[in-house]
Amino acid sequence: MHSDHPAVTVLGLGSMGSALAAVLLERGHETTVWNRSPHRAVPLTDRGARLAATPGEAVAASPLTIACVLDYEALHAVLGPVAGSLAGRALVNLTSGSPEQARETAAWARSHSADYLDGAIMTTPPGVGSPERMFLYSGPRDVLEAHRPTLAALGDPLHLGADPGLASLYDTALLGLMWSTMTGWLHGTALVGAEGTPAAAFTPVAVRWLTAVAGFMTTYAPQVDAGRYPGDDATVNVQIAAIGHLVHAAAARGVDNALPELLKSAMERARDAGHGSDSYASLIEVLRHPAEER
Amino acid sequence: MHSDHPAVTVLGLGSMGSALAAVLLERGHETTVWNRSPHRAVPLTDRGARLAATPGEAVAASPLTIACVLDYEALHAVLGPVAGSLAGRALVNLTSGSPEQARETAAWARSHSADYLDGAIMTTPPGVGSPERMFLYSGPRDVLEAHRPTLAALGDPLHLGADPGLASLYDTALLGLMWSTMTGWLHGTALVGAEGTPAAAFTPVAVRWLTAVAGFMTTYAPQVDAGRYPGDDATVNVQIAAIGHLVHAAAARGVDNALPELLKSAMERARDAGHGSDSYASLIEVLRHPAEER
Ligand SMILES: NC(=O)c1ccc[n+]([C@@H]2O[C@H](COP(=O)([O-])OP(=O)(O)OC[C@H]3O[C@@H](n4cnc5c(N)ncnc54)[C@H](OP(=O)(O)O)[C@@H]3O)[C@@H](O)[C@H]2O)c1
Ligand SMILES: NC(=O)c1ccc[n+]([C@@H]2O[C@H](COP(=O)([O-])OP(=O)(O)OC[C@H]3O[C@@H](n4cnc5c(N)ncnc54)[C@H](OP(=O)(O)O)[C@@H]3O)[C@@H](O)[C@H]2O)c1
Repeated sequence: MHSDHPAVTVLGLGSMGSALAAVLLERGHETTVWNRSPHRAVPLTDRGARLAATPGEAVAASPLTIACVLDYEALHAVLGPVAGSLAGRALVNLTSGSPEQARETAAWARSHSADYLDGAIMTTPPGVGSPERMFLYSGPRDVLEAHRPTLAALGDPLHLGADPGLASLYDTALLGLMWSTMTGWLHGTALVGAEGTPAAAFTPVAVRWLTAVAGFMTTYAPQVDAGRYPGDDATVNVQIAAIGHLVHAAAARGVDNALPELLKSAMERARDAGHGSDSYASLIEVLRHPAEER
Repeated sequence: MHSDHPAVTVLGLGSMGSALAAVLLERGHETTVWNRSPHRAVPLTDRGARLAATPGEAVAASPLTIACVLDYEALHAVLGPVAGSLAGRALVNLTSGSPEQARETAAWARSHSADYLDGAIMTTPPGVGSPERMFLYSGPRDVLEAHRPTLAALGDPLHLGADPGLASLYDTALLGLMWSTMTGWLHGTALVGAEGTPAAAFTPVAVRWLTAVAGFMTTYAPQVDAGRYPGDDATVNVQIAAIGHLVHAAAARGVDNALPELLKSAMERARDAGHGSDSYASLIEVLRHPAEER
């Protein structure tokens, strides 16, 4: 074991696990791998990975095991029978799941004297290894710090907090932002496309516009935390007038209007709740459950 | 008139028109202003602007007039009676409206021998003057080139094409992207907020994630133009499974689910149309009018 490139084990060699192991090997870590279907290890053993015969042997080979399988059911199928081998070692679980599953698995790992971090990978396999891509972690901060050099090889490690459910919670929330953004982009692309503008012409403008939108989000975040939404720049009433133009333009060009109609009705609910002169950030009040509303 | 800082007229001194005139004055342009309610000119005349008594006098003062009033009705109310004074001059109209209104106004300007550009301002008043912010223009490119030094003072001028309706069309499509993105962000903020994470903690992560999302858009744009959506990285089927987790997590925390439910049903329609193994970009097929579908 090299102290600056500690040995590491990767469990699960699907498209994501294989990308993780490949980057660790490339950065000079002694890497042990295991996968239910052993043939998927071949491209990695060709590049110097050691193939363990069992999950227990794999865990025993390194102070740190990174798991990335389909779901938590698969994770427990793999590690349940060999939980004892985790004692005194660290398990970093990059399998996607719910906050509840992460918390249960953290408690299970603790009961077997293992350090545990839950994580979420905010990129696709080709992005693994880029310092620009985020890997979200939650659980004890000292576990992240102890393994930071190894984890930093995979992407930029962000520690969200001690609650092991946070990485999953952020992951879910961020994917929701992704789907909203990509669907809004596709709707706009369909709209300009109806008049002959190619996606390749519209998209660079849309990408650049997103940096301005990110600026609005940054301005609005403290408003959300304060529960006060001064409409200095643009009010909900102004946005309602403007989205009417979008609905009209899309209808005139035969583009599906379900998304702008839904956004418009959320704005109207905010207005009806007294936020007409407030900023767009006030829509969070209508997205929250009525029981939790201020 | 200074050749590198040509004289310019601004019609309409609402919050946006005032910001435009202030930046032009600051950059050393001889600036003539007019507003229906003259008192709004005072902060500008204090800084050296010349106040015209009528719209006709204002137009006659400069080779270029920039108009920014509430809507096209207001624009025609102001300029209709003095259309003759526009002959041989340029009118750059930054009033928001529909592509149809822009095209009609371009034809009207042409009939009065005026050069005409339609424009859209992709920022709020405090962003005017920043070279990072986009000003979208459509109409004859040579009109933009003739007045580029003046227009570049306001923000980065992008020429979208000769059709004067394009700036409005892009504007509408980009605002739709903004509302989708901001609502997705607020939904995610409500979700993590339900477990005590402040918006100020979530938002920097969300902003950074948007740069990854912008990368997906850039990857998918050529797929849209080709009408082929290879699902190499992540398929619609995978996204449908993942959005199930979001719907579940939001429901468990009492967060309104209308937005993720709508996105999920769009994904399911794409799957049912045969795009289950395609990329998310294939959703554009279900957003377009059935009559235009391939
Ligand atoms: N791909 C991405 O872009 C991406 C991005 C972020 C997060 N993730 C997450 O990363 C995890 C893995 O994704 P992936 O893309 O690598 O998926 P994948 O290519 O489908 O691979 C799934 C992996 O799980 C294993 N597995 C499934 N069921 C198992 C079981 N019952 N027992 C043992 N092993 C089992 C598979 O083993 P076999 O080879 O034997 O079937 C394989 O190693 C998922 O939780 C996913 O949500 C993926
Ligand atoms: N504010 C923004 O963030 C923003 C961003 C992008 C685009 N825009 C667009 O810029 C344009 C102006 O917006 P704004 O924020 O400056 O609005 P605003 O503050 O409400 O100002 C409206 C302007 O229009 C004038 N006006 C209204 N009706 C008129 C009429 N019948 N005849 C003559 N003048 C009339 C007003 O004159 P009085 O002072 O006499 O009422 C005032 O100068 C709008 O099309 C808006 O969509 C604004």
